[in-house]
Amino acid sequence: MKLLEERIQQDGIIKGGNVLKVDSFLNHQMDIDLFVEMGKELKRLFADCPINKILTIEASGIGIACIVAQQFHVPVVFAKKAQSINIDGEVYSTKIQSFTHGKIYDVIVSKKYISSQDHILIIDDFLANGCALNGLIDLVQSAGATVEGIGIAIEKGFQKGGELIRAKGVRLESLAIVDSMDESTGTIEFRHRA
Amino acid sequence: MKLLEERIQQDGIIKGGNVLKVDSFLNHQMDIDLFVEMGKELKRLFADCPINKILTIEASGIGIACIVAQQFHVPVVFAKKAQSINIDGEVYSTKIQSFTHGKIYDVIVSKKYISSQDHILIIDDFLANGCALNGLIDLVQSAGATVEGIGIAIEKGFQKGGELIRAKGVRLESLAIVDSMDESTGTIEFRHRA
Repeated sequence: MKLLEERIQQDGIIKGGNVLKVDSFLNHQMDIDLFVEMGKELKRLFADCPINKILTIEASGIGIACIVAQQFHVPVVFAKKAQSINIDGEVYSTKIQSFTHGKIYDVIVSKKYISSQDHILIIDDFLANGCALNGLIDLVQSAGATVEGIGIAIEKGFQKGGELIRAKGVRLESLAIVDSMDESTGTIEFRHRA
Repeated sequence: MKLLEERIQQDGIIKGGNVLKVDSFLNHQMDIDLFVEMGKELKRLFADCPINKILTIEASGIGIACIVAQQFHVPVVFAKKAQSINIDGEVYSTKIQSFTHGKIYDVIVSKKYISSQDHILIIDDFLANGCALNGLIDLVQSAGATVEGIGIAIEKGFQKGGELIRAKGVRLESLAIVDSMDESTGTIEFRHRA
């Protein structure tokens, strides 16, 4: 998605350790007008899918998921990190290792909000090693629901997550795929469809 | 806001310890069409304010804030709980005690995303004892920015938060104010303007 690639080029900051900081528009400050365009593009890409719910994970996936959901006119469910006293009844749970922090945490979603009838689009801001997405796929499958696809804002194409998820046969659409980035020159190269 | 009050009556669940569970439409599963109506109402209420940014706190404030922000055509910044390696440079920080969990945590926002030029609308899903909101007000004031007002989905009018914040002279608009609720009968009474 050209608009997003241009924004990454303009405002993204490359850091050591394969970190791409986009917190000026994506995951700390959020450019809602950009999110609306991302939502329209994901609606176009998944127009043929019978999506009735969007699943994301707190915290930085929530904003994108809500704006995308407006295009689909479906509710959003966000998976929560660690048990909260405000989630009662039974939950589906899985474990996810954070790329950013390294630590492993429990992620839960109430059984009330995903059922075997659901056709789910998973949304997140970033795809790196795929741990978060694999956890979300696991939650959906625990409920017997269908993963219709995954929509990502930025995929780091030089990490293994995208490849692993596509190899599972899950439909994955990333609005920008960074194939390489160079901290010293600030250069970012994007992958485009053949 | 009648639509929200009706939804609370219909789907809210009263629990012991002054807990009102609305996770079927507000803060676990999110009804985006309802959020759009809430956004329109907050735009109407704050139409006279020169708002250029919305501030919220992760996680459950983010969805509402993003949908509200579409009405104002402004970016959203969400305050983060606890230090993350992905926030570099300097941050404004404050401490907030969670009503739900009881524990005290650090909340931060990058100095890059709030400045003395900003006129900020603070958005959150719930107002109970006001700790989260006081923390967000503190962050805005640390930056020398202006709090134009606060927009809340559900205020628990029988807890002290709303009174304390209004006493500070901050303009606070809650879309539904629960004045009392009875766990045994399931009755919820709302406060309305005189």
